[in-house]
Amino acid sequence: MDRPVEPGHFSACEARLDKHIAGLCSVDFPVAVVLPAGGSGERTGLLTPKQFCTFLNRPLISYTIQTFERVPWIQSIVVVVAKESLDLMMDIIHRFHHRNVLVVHGGSTRHRSIFNGVRALSEGEDGTARIKPKVVIIHDAVRPFVEEDFLLKITMAAKEQGAAGAIRPLVSTVIATTLEGYLDHSLERTMYRASEMPQGFIYDVIYQAYQRCSESDFEFGTECLHLALQYCGTNAKLIEGPPTLWKVTYKRDLAAAESIVKETLSQSACVVTGGSAQATELANALQRSMSALDMEVDVISDLIGDNAKSLSKEWNFIQVSVHSSCFSEVGKTLSALEEADRALLHPVVIIWVYLNVSEDDSSANKPMGGEPAAMMELATRAKLGNILVYGIQLHHSEEATLWGRSVERVAQMSCALIRDRSPALTGQLLQA
Amino acid sequence: MDRPVEPGHFSACEARLDKHIAGLCSVDFPVAVVLPAGGSGERTGLLTPKQFCTFLNRPLISYTIQTFERVPWIQSIVVVVAKESLDLMMDIIHRFHHRNVLVVHGGSTRHRSIFNGVRALSEGEDGTARIKPKVVIIHDAVRPFVEEDFLLKITMAAKEQGAAGAIRPLVSTVIATTLEGYLDHSLERTMYRASEMPQGFIYDVIYQAYQRCSESDFEFGTECLHLALQYCGTNAKLIEGPPTLWKVTYKRDLAAAESIVKETLSQSACVVTGGSAQATELANALQRSMSALDMEVDVISDLIGDNAKSLSKEWNFIQVSVHSSCFSEVGKTLSALEEADRALLHPVVIIWVYLNVSEDDSSANKPMGGEPAAMMELATRAKLGNILVYGIQLHHSEEATLWGRSVERVAQMSCALIRDRSPALTGQLLQA
Repeated sequence: MDRPVEPGHFSACEARLDKHIAGLCSVDFPVAVVLPAGGSGERTGLLTPKQFCTFLNRPLISYTIQTFERVPWIQSIVVVVAKESLDLMMDIIHRFHHRNVLVVHGGSTRHRSIFNGVRALSEGEDGTARIKPKVVIIHDAVRPFVEEDFLLKITMAAKEQGAAGAIRPLVSTVIATTLEGYLDHSLERTMYRASEMPQGFIYDVIYQAYQRCSESDFEFGTECLHLALQYCGTNAKLIEGPPTLWKVTYKRDLAAAESIVKETLSQSACVVTGGSAQATELANALQRSMSALDMEVDVISDLIGDNAKSLSKEWNFIQVSVHSSCFSEVGKTLSALEEADRALLHPVVIIWVYLNVSEDDSSANKPMGGEPAAMMELATRAKLGNILVYGIQLHHSEEATLWGRSVERVAQMSCALIRDRSPALTGQLLQA
Repeated sequence: MDRPVEPGHFSACEARLDKHIAGLCSVDFPVAVVLPAGGSGERTGLLTPKQFCTFLNRPLISYTIQTFERVPWIQSIVVVVAKESLDLMMDIIHRFHHRNVLVVHGGSTRHRSIFNGVRALSEGEDGTARIKPKVVIIHDAVRPFVEEDFLLKITMAAKEQGAAGAIRPLVSTVIATTLEGYLDHSLERTMYRASEMPQGFIYDVIYQAYQRCSESDFEFGTECLHLALQYCGTNAKLIEGPPTLWKVTYKRDLAAAESIVKETLSQSACVVTGGSAQATELANALQRSMSALDMEVDVISDLIGDNAKSLSKEWNFIQVSVHSSCFSEVGKTLSALEEADRALLHPVVIIWVYLNVSEDDSSANKPMGGEPAAMMELATRAKLGNILVYGIQLHHSEEATLWGRSVERVAQMSCALIRDRSPALTGQLLQA
């Protein structure tokens, strides 16, 4: 499985609490992170360096920063960027309200950049001393899905051994080539591993390794663990990491990252009924149908009082109305989400499900009066705040088969709208 | 760039013709392909082995087979599957009309499976001799995007050198570990390469290598190139391949593969106007707007005569009507596509754009009479044949700003519908 447990702070609360307690107990020393983000991203085939490529309205690097911000025992995050990306980086930090992030200029190579980041943790730009962390984690800006569990393992091993790094089994056989481009020999796959990120170091170990290493290391070296071994005699502990550690390298990896985030955002939804019996019946039927489509559904009557906690928990809301005038409920939900600044990091979906109970057959295939225009207007405003509003109309039927088919269609369309999160289709009133 | 030039036979016809001529000229000897497809796919985290995982209604392995079927100088394809997947494989071959495919039982290891496939090219099951190919290409069923150009390179190098294989630069540093799980040393990255697929062999070289190799090679070996070197003294020529050679390994890779195919299917669309002046004006405006959204648009008046060639070229059709009665045009386009069996390998999109020129303001926000129901019915039938029908209604306006905004919305929604290809939203009449 390469799905992250959670790229947000929204699932499996109890499990996390336990973990946090465990984490807090064992990490009783200061930990910082250095994220080198100076790469040019040639391999993506895109003009923008990959750490700044955007999906779901947010640059990749912001997802990675968020991952570390969620970890309560990490004190500070240093991002190292090329000079030309400094303004962009500051803008990202400001736009997505990232905290405890220090931005530092990169050097001409990866190692120089990392050293700049490491140094910034103990010295201010003016040379003043800062309180250095005990352990520093080095990670890539383009590996957004690292989990807290694994960071804890790396951190504890680094504290004990001086250095620790993530490894993965080799996906392909590694071969040595002759100068003429022929096979020389192939390596015994079981003897080798791919060295990945994150890596962790006792601060003084990585600092000294960089102070002692040669210009050639700074220029051509690729492996921090190797420098710690060569210059500090520190044998790094290697820990096998999950596939989620993978590095966004090519354009296709951005699509994969987007699909992982979308899947995580689409695991559950909250149906708000307004309390009426008909709406509640529909909500319960939707709950069954959507569960069968692998979506967990909560049914609540409103979003006030104790129910308001759904506002901070869910990424998807389905507002059921039995009168078209109840469309105003959508406006209220929208305002509550806007006030809670809920869509800052991920787009939030609101689906208005309008249950038409009118007996008038002539209206059977028409949406009601001015609602489509009002919906489009609301949806246009909501989209500016990263909230996607869609509508689905269905007609009440006493005939069980017809009714069942309509509910099924609402469920399928709701799941599709939630999974696709298409900005171009907001404001539409679909027919079930 | 990791986008394939074309996963279908639908783009850049002239360029391909040149390549085919070049290919045909140089490959004047029989070439066959062996696709080992017996893997269990543990790493995807899915129950289905990854070669049988489906996206856009088709299993991954069918995409790979199609890739080889498109190459005119490849005579036959041997797919090696586990016994329990035999029925599934035969069903896939039947369902997607694959030709020249021989299905063979796998062995207990990868090498035994490949040898079974290689042997089937020269001996029938009853031991009768078959005319063996000169060169055999070995490829993975889970690398669907290999390009003809690169297959030609591998084939020609194999013919000349006896063996040839694809290599890629290492993405991560490779390290050797101690028995206790510590860093032993890291390899000099520039000296090594990842060995990938495809690989090509003179038939007799790979056949003999397998006949001479040990049980231990069959059991634990990973590298065909290595066997050719060890048992036939053949030094394989190594050729750097493009990133598209990548192997679908994890669940996220399936999302990446789907996005690559979707992107390729979404590069262009054909707008059919019916010939009226108003429809043509709208079509031309759409052409401009959609070009700005990176979609190439052809405008034609109908799909008959010379224009019928669009039926075999395009994956996306936009049918413009100025009378709702022209909805029947959608039915005709649908029938033409069904007759041409056009949606066998990829879902085809038809968007009905209904330009409402009625002066009656009361109808401004309503779709017309019985069309939504008729559309839903047509869309339901079309979906059974892998054709996705959507509708967009817009109102004619003399006011340039309003009109421009409507056209822009039609363009955006059309691009989104084409890119998302969501089956749940077919039959809907959206409002622009």
